[in-house]
Amino acid sequence: MNFSSKLLEDAVNEFSKLPGVGQKTALRLVLHLLNKEQEEVDHFGNVLIRLRKEIKHCSVCHNISDQHTCNICTAGKREKELICVVEDTRDVMAVENTGQYFGVYHVLGGLISPMDGIGPSDLFIDSLVQRVATTPVKEVILALSATMEGDTTLFYLYKRLKDFQIPITTIARGIAFGGELEYADEITLGRSIVTRVPYQNSLIK
Amino acid sequence: MNFSSKLLEDAVNEFSKLPGVGQKTALRLVLHLLNKEQEEVDHFGNVLIRLRKEIKHCSVCHNISDQHTCNICTAGKREKELICVVEDTRDVMAVENTGQYFGVYHVLGGLISPMDGIGPSDLFIDSLVQRVATTPVKEVILALSATMEGDTTLFYLYKRLKDFQIPITTIARGIAFGGELEYADEITLGRSIVTRVPYQNSLIK
Repeated sequence: MNFSSKLLEDAVNEFSKLPGVGQKTALRLVLHLLNKEQEEVDHFGNVLIRLRKEIKHCSVCHNISDQHTCNICTAGKREKELICVVEDTRDVMAVENTGQYFGVYHVLGGLISPMDGIGPSDLFIDSLVQRVATTPVKEVILALSATMEGDTTLFYLYKRLKDFQIPITTIARGIAFGGELEYADEITLGRSIVTRVPYQNSLIK
Repeated sequence: MNFSSKLLEDAVNEFSKLPGVGQKTALRLVLHLLNKEQEEVDHFGNVLIRLRKEIKHCSVCHNISDQHTCNICTAGKREKELICVVEDTRDVMAVENTGQYFGVYHVLGGLISPMDGIGPSDLFIDSLVQRVATTPVKEVILALSATMEGDTTLFYLYKRLKDFQIPITTIARGIAFGGELEYADEITLGRSIVTRVPYQNSLIK
């Protein structure tokens, strides 16, 4: 692109470094910001700078937090002996949104992925093992994506945790609510028959 | 969404104000930035702040510029008596990319759109008329989008400029290069027959 201004070019380049944002989209976003008030754009810029500088990760569960220990880990009401292991903060938000979980979390910070050069030591796995070893834990729920990387991580975590003699569970996989059988893939449908549950247990309470 | 951090929430809100960016996309972008180096994110934030504060518009053609008068308006090689009227800076870039135009521009800053409350006085139309009235102009090319708003603006500009007794042209409309006739809409195809050109003129030089 031929830019008529160096500043414009810089801003477009910064935006186009974001995932899923190409040069044309970046230009559209920058022109949008140019039409906004100075204060609004200043606020945007400052929020970005503060975000990276001041944000913390909870010392217990590694979730993103404004404090040393996050709100969930310090909440009196949460069951501290129930740990839900997730990939990142988006998954914490997803589980929280269900309103069905009242334990605490452990954020791995990613999944094991040899293709991307991410091994167990790049994730907060040792600190999970440490947590299970040193604090009373009744159950570890592994809530990871049903992908190749998720399954690899699941397998590795199970190996590391199985000797502690505590229940290790994974979230149920099967036909989604509202899903029609004829459109389900064979693996999901097959597994959902093998891992069928008593009708009473399948009701939403 | 339940955010675990106020800073995170602020940043997601700022991103989701951008056109075409929802909360989920905004969160993805923010988490991406959190994985970047502090300096990179600082640079991004500072570029945004500087962009809005320091960017100028050319005093002649109103295109975005770092100087008082833009590079195109000051370039010795450009034909100053040929003015191409466009909607915004993206269209200047589009025309520049063709490598087929060697005149100067006039950026309107939008199109007349009663639906969006944009009238002729919100655009740089008076300054175009002024330019045509006070400087020698050989031809005005109206290069506007082939939309309702584009056509309205075209009609209004023609009315304002016709008394100056200079040629007023519009860019050709018709079947795009590589376009197949059977997929062309009737209006485009119909007009392209009515406004047919001698074969010799249709060749790309």
